[in-house]
Amino acid sequence: MKFIEKDFKEEISRRIEKIRSELRASEASAILIGYNANLYYSAGRFFRGYVFVTLQQRPLWFVIKPKGFEPEEDLVYVRKPEEIPQKLLEMGYPEPESIALEENDLTYSDIIRLKALFPAAEMKNGSVVMKRARMRKTEWEISEMKEDGRHHIKVYGEVKSCYRPGMSDLEFQIEIERKLRLEGSLGVSRVSGNLMEINLGSVISGNNADTPSPYEFTMGGAGVHPTLPVGADGSQIKEGETVMIDMNGAFNGYQTDMTRVWSRGEISALAHKAHDCSIKILRRLEKEALPEVPVRLLYEKAMELVESEGLKDYFMGHMSQVSFIGHGVGIELNELPVINARSKDILKSNMTLAIEPKFVVPGVGAVGVENTYVVREDGLENLTPFPEGIEKL
Amino acid sequence: MKFIEKDFKEEISRRIEKIRSELRASEASAILIGYNANLYYSAGRFFRGYVFVTLQQRPLWFVIKPKGFEPEEDLVYVRKPEEIPQKLLEMGYPEPESIALEENDLTYSDIIRLKALFPAAEMKNGSVVMKRARMRKTEWEISEMKEDGRHHIKVYGEVKSCYRPGMSDLEFQIEIERKLRLEGSLGVSRVSGNLMEINLGSVISGNNADTPSPYEFTMGGAGVHPTLPVGADGSQIKEGETVMIDMNGAFNGYQTDMTRVWSRGEISALAHKAHDCSIKILRRLEKEALPEVPVRLLYEKAMELVESEGLKDYFMGHMSQVSFIGHGVGIELNELPVINARSKDILKSNMTLAIEPKFVVPGVGAVGVENTYVVREDGLENLTPFPEGIEKL
Repeated sequence: MKFIEKDFKEEISRRIEKIRSELRASEASAILIGYNANLYYSAGRFFRGYVFVTLQQRPLWFVIKPKGFEPEEDLVYVRKPEEIPQKLLEMGYPEPESIALEENDLTYSDIIRLKALFPAAEMKNGSVVMKRARMRKTEWEISEMKEDGRHHIKVYGEVKSCYRPGMSDLEFQIEIERKLRLEGSLGVSRVSGNLMEINLGSVISGNNADTPSPYEFTMGGAGVHPTLPVGADGSQIKEGETVMIDMNGAFNGYQTDMTRVWSRGEISALAHKAHDCSIKILRRLEKEALPEVPVRLLYEKAMELVESEGLKDYFMGHMSQVSFIGHGVGIELNELPVINARSKDILKSNMTLAIEPKFVVPGVGAVGVENTYVVREDGLENLTPFPEGIEKL
Repeated sequence: MKFIEKDFKEEISRRIEKIRSELRASEASAILIGYNANLYYSAGRFFRGYVFVTLQQRPLWFVIKPKGFEPEEDLVYVRKPEEIPQKLLEMGYPEPESIALEENDLTYSDIIRLKALFPAAEMKNGSVVMKRARMRKTEWEISEMKEDGRHHIKVYGEVKSCYRPGMSDLEFQIEIERKLRLEGSLGVSRVSGNLMEINLGSVISGNNADTPSPYEFTMGGAGVHPTLPVGADGSQIKEGETVMIDMNGAFNGYQTDMTRVWSRGEISALAHKAHDCSIKILRRLEKEALPEVPVRLLYEKAMELVESEGLKDYFMGHMSQVSFIGHGVGIELNELPVINARSKDILKSNMTLAIEPKFVVPGVGAVGVENTYVVREDGLENLTPFPEGIEKL
C-alpha cells in the first residue's frame, strides 16, 4: 500500500503550501504535526506518527504505526519521536530556529516530549497554524464536503419515515442514526476540544431545547445521563411541539453541518415567525457574505433582522443564549472562523461556514435552519440544499 | 437542581479520599481537576469547570456552565479559571505548595493557563493522581458497571437476530449499534488519548482481523475510510469465517468491555483450538488473579498456556501483534492497570479488568473471549457472564 496515492500528491502539495504560508505568518520555521485531524489533513490518512513541514525543504512523514507502507523517499519509519532529530540530521535538515507544535490540541505531556526534540528552537503555536491553514478549503476538499452534503441530504429525506407516533426524541434519533450509518456515516462526530462531546448529533423536542448544557453547542438539551448532558432527553414528542434535527454525517473525512425542523401538528404563530426569520437571515447572508467582508458583519446583519422582528429573547437560546450564529466546518465540526460580534476574521473565498440562526420558543421548542456553505466570489454556495420549511411528522 | 444529590454525597466523599491518598503518594498538596472523565468521577456529572481538592480542606466545585444549580456552600460559580485564586483567598484556602494538573489529558494551552493560577506552586502530574485514584472502584462504581454489564449482555443475546445472510460486517455492526442504543447506550465510547478513536466498537470478520491499524486496540481492521482506519471494512461475512463482536455499551457513566465470536458455517480446527485456549486462559486467571499478585504474572500465565499449545504466532494478532492482554476499564475503556510483561502494578481488590486473550487465525479471522472482571478476595468476579462458545450465525 502506498502511503500517499500518486493522484493525491498534488493535493497534498497544495495543503503543504497553505501550511507554509501560515508558518510564515506565525514566524515559525517548521511544524511537527501530531494531532489526528491535522495528520489527516497533511497526509490524507490517519496514522500514528508525525508530519514535519519546513518552509523550504521537502515535507517528511514519520510513521510509527501501521507497518507495511511501500518505501518512498519522504516516508521515514521511527519507533518513537525521539528518533526524529537523528533522522533529520541524516537527511540534511538543520535544527529549525523555531518549531510550531499543536499547543491547543495535544496534551501538555505530548508537547513537552516533542519540544525536547528541538531544544534550541523557540516554540510557536502550531494549532493556530493548522487551524488557519485549514480555514480556506481546496477544491478537492470542497468536493469531499459536497459529497458529504449529498449523503446528509439523502438521509434527511428519510427522516419522516423514521418517525412513528408515540416515539421519544431518543428513539427517533436512533432510527435516524441507523439511516446515517447505512448511508455511510463513519459513526463518530469529529470535534475539537473537550467541551464538544456528542454522539452522532442532536435531536431535541419541545422544552428540552431550553435546557442549558455545559457544552459549547448552539442548542442545549438535558441528554439522558449526567456524563453526557446534551441533546435528546428521552421524552415523548408531543402535539404542538417541534423536533429539531441536527445530526452529523461524517461520511468521509469531511463533515457538513445541517439542521432542519419537523413538528407534531400545528405550532404557534411565534414559532413560525421565528423560523421564517431564520430563513430570511440565511437568504440575506447568502448574498452579502462575499470575500473581504468582515465575519463580524454576518453576526451584525443577523442581529439586525432578529431585532427588527422583536425576536431577540428567543435567538440562539432562551433561558441560556450563546453569542455566535455559526462557525467554520470541515474535517472537524468546529473550525474557524467563529461567526460572532468579536470576530476579527475577514471572509475569504473557499472558506466553509455552517450558519445556524436558531430560536428557542418556550412551550414549542427549537426552530431555525442550518446550512453549510462555501464562500464564493458571488456569495455563498449551499452544500446542504434541502427544503427548509417545517414539515409535519 | 442540586449540583450533587444528597444521597450521592457519601460516594463523592469516598472518591475524594482516594484522590487525597494519591495526592500524598505524588507529594502534591492539591489538584485542580478539569478533564471530562475526572470531572464526572469527582462530581458525578459532567460540567464546564473545575474541581479543587486539597489534602485537608473541603473540596470546592468551580462551575462555569451550566447556570442554575441550587446554591451550596462548596459550589462556586466563576466566569473563567482566572477567578479561582481570588475565590480561594476569600474562602481561606492558602496557595498550595504544589499543584497537580492533568498533564496527560488536558492540552498544553490548558495546563499553562491553569498553572498560571498558582505561580509559586510546583507542578505535579494530576493525570497520574486521577488514573491511580480511579483504578480501584468503590462498590457504588462496581454496581454501575454491573448494570452496564447486564445491558451489554442483553444486547449480545440479540446479536444473532441482527444477522441476515449476505450482510457485510458493517451492516451487521449497524444493526447491533441500533440494539445497543435502544437498550440505553449513550452512543459514544469514552476512551483516553488520541490513539483510541472509535465509533461504538469493532466488528471484524475474516482476514480483516489481520489488517494492522495505527490505533492501540488489541485487534486492527482496515475500517472503511482512511480517517478512521479501524474495525469493519464493509466486506461480506463469508462461509468458514468468524465475526468478532467487540461492541461497547456505555449505558451509564461506566463501561464494560466484552467480546464474543460468531461464525458462518464450520471453521478450522486451529481456530477452535485457539478459541478454547482463550477460554482456558480466562478460567485460569479467574482463579489466580488474587489481590497482591503482580499484574505482569497474569500476562506470563497467559503466555505460558499459549506457548504450551503452540499458538504464539496467532496470539494478540498475527501480522501485527500487541504486547498486552487486557487493561483496566471503568469511566474510560482504557484505564489502569495495563496487563503486560512490563507492568509494575500489583493487583488490589476492586480493580476492574477487561481481559481479552485473542487470536488471529489467517483465512478464518479473530477468535477469543473478553470479559470485564472485578478483583475480589477469592478471585475474579465476572461482570459480563455470557456463553463463550462460538455460535453459528
